[in-house]
Amino acid sequence: MDRLRGLTVGFQGVPGSFSQQALFDYFGNDVSTKAVWDFEDIFTAIRNNDIDYGVLPIENSSTGAISEVYDLLNKYEFHIIGEVCLKVDHCLMGIRGVDVDDITEVYSHPQAFSQCAEFLKSYPMWRLIPYHNTAKSAEYVKMKSSKSMSAIASRKAAELYDLEILKNNINSNTTNTTRFVVIARNMEVDEKNDKVSVVFSTAHKAGSLYNVLRYFAENNINLLKIESRPIKDRPWEYFFYIDFEGNLNDETVKIAVRSVKDNSSYFKLIGNYKAHLEI
Amino acid sequence: MDRLRGLTVGFQGVPGSFSQQALFDYFGNDVSTKAVWDFEDIFTAIRNNDIDYGVLPIENSSTGAISEVYDLLNKYEFHIIGEVCLKVDHCLMGIRGVDVDDITEVYSHPQAFSQCAEFLKSYPMWRLIPYHNTAKSAEYVKMKSSKSMSAIASRKAAELYDLEILKNNINSNTTNTTRFVVIARNMEVDEKNDKVSVVFSTAHKAGSLYNVLRYFAENNINLLKIESRPIKDRPWEYFFYIDFEGNLNDETVKIAVRSVKDNSSYFKLIGNYKAHLEI
Repeated sequence: MDRLRGLTVGFQGVPGSFSQQALFDYFGNDVSTKAVWDFEDIFTAIRNNDIDYGVLPIENSSTGAISEVYDLLNKYEFHIIGEVCLKVDHCLMGIRGVDVDDITEVYSHPQAFSQCAEFLKSYPMWRLIPYHNTAKSAEYVKMKSSKSMSAIASRKAAELYDLEILKNNINSNTTNTTRFVVIARNMEVDEKNDKVSVVFSTAHKAGSLYNVLRYFAENNINLLKIESRPIKDRPWEYFFYIDFEGNLNDETVKIAVRSVKDNSSYFKLIGNYKAHLEI
Repeated sequence: MDRLRGLTVGFQGVPGSFSQQALFDYFGNDVSTKAVWDFEDIFTAIRNNDIDYGVLPIENSSTGAISEVYDLLNKYEFHIIGEVCLKVDHCLMGIRGVDVDDITEVYSHPQAFSQCAEFLKSYPMWRLIPYHNTAKSAEYVKMKSSKSMSAIASRKAAELYDLEILKNNINSNTTNTTRFVVIARNMEVDEKNDKVSVVFSTAHKAGSLYNVLRYFAENNINLLKIESRPIKDRPWEYFFYIDFEGNLNDETVKIAVRSVKDNSSYFKLIGNYKAHLEI
């Protein structure tokens, strides 16, 4: 893509991570990338003009929303400009020559433990050690070079850190897919955009969420997802994140967005982008 | 409470945990308790008649839903029969004589790290090591007896494991409260019950969530909370967990529950219980 010349895209993690794979799936393999330590670093890197775009996991089809990313999308004034879904297959790996019976410790991200819970139930004696991310845990096992250690990570991470795959596709759910969003400083308008993300909160009284949702229904707009997140200083009140079908230039979308905005105590348009077809 | 004679209540964690404190707040200090290792053990212990009730954290006012507990409430056929809210104040602690400058590692539950994120930002050199629960991390620091190690846990845990509190109330949010639910094998009918929890899924098409929510609005029922969780084998489809005000014997609640049930592809009544006033 010529328009990508000179652009840099950030991802959280290390080479071999699922985020890096999602980034390449969306932008192609030739784009310049920058790895950062945690999710918030993506936002500060955009703010500081260190990167032009950032790729972040927002939801997994088995384990659900990645709440921290939802909270950050609300905290910063940036926008979702695209999304990409990636089938996530986890592998168990160790250093060359290791046998499953040698293992006493498994390193990985807590979400990966959760996605591989059924497989891990057969090995109750293994100590599960939560780690910053899956690829980093593979790197750590390689570095320590101990036969008692293993990691749960991607096939790509096994190749990159020269580890031996002991067992493929150990995730319980074979349709295990992670949805990533691509964020940028500014919205990108395009007639192909068919998905809108907003966040709002409503008055804390009977029927107020329903009263906002009816603007979508009245305009025949398809709600794709609703996610609740707490408002930190107001116990048991919530921000609602809603994804729905449409383009911001559609008349019905304009009316619905205006009505929701006018009837919310807080409203922010997060983005309008092209939905990625489910894998 | 005389009705508690001979009853055993389970909680996840070790003595000194917030779950145990919530249990005592609800049942009093004299009830028999049983500590279990993970959340699912509470459900299997009820199934095996090892415990009569179980106490589980379901939501924190700063960090949101505890998804695993939502998933387990749907997986098992048990019921919420009560709830209790507990103000959660985290302390930083180490062995006697330790100084903040000695610390290189902090042990705690990931949710506690998240709740103390602002405090921890001032110590970027500390290695944060995720642990099974807060009280267990205090116990571990005591056991290791190293000056470089610290834990984030409750004041109660510091007393119990004879650790020195280095800093009180390090949670970013001073209204930080966790809501716990009390579960049992059977529903408990009481005219004082004023909160209902249900879970349902809807057809995957435009307006279907809205069409279910309107039965609450039409019957003037106040929705307290909506939480989405993925349906594991159907990517991007969801279970909706709804809490609303009412007693199952109210006519309007009966009509709403019947209508929601008739218009959902899946429906389960999780419980009817007395709401705990927010602290």
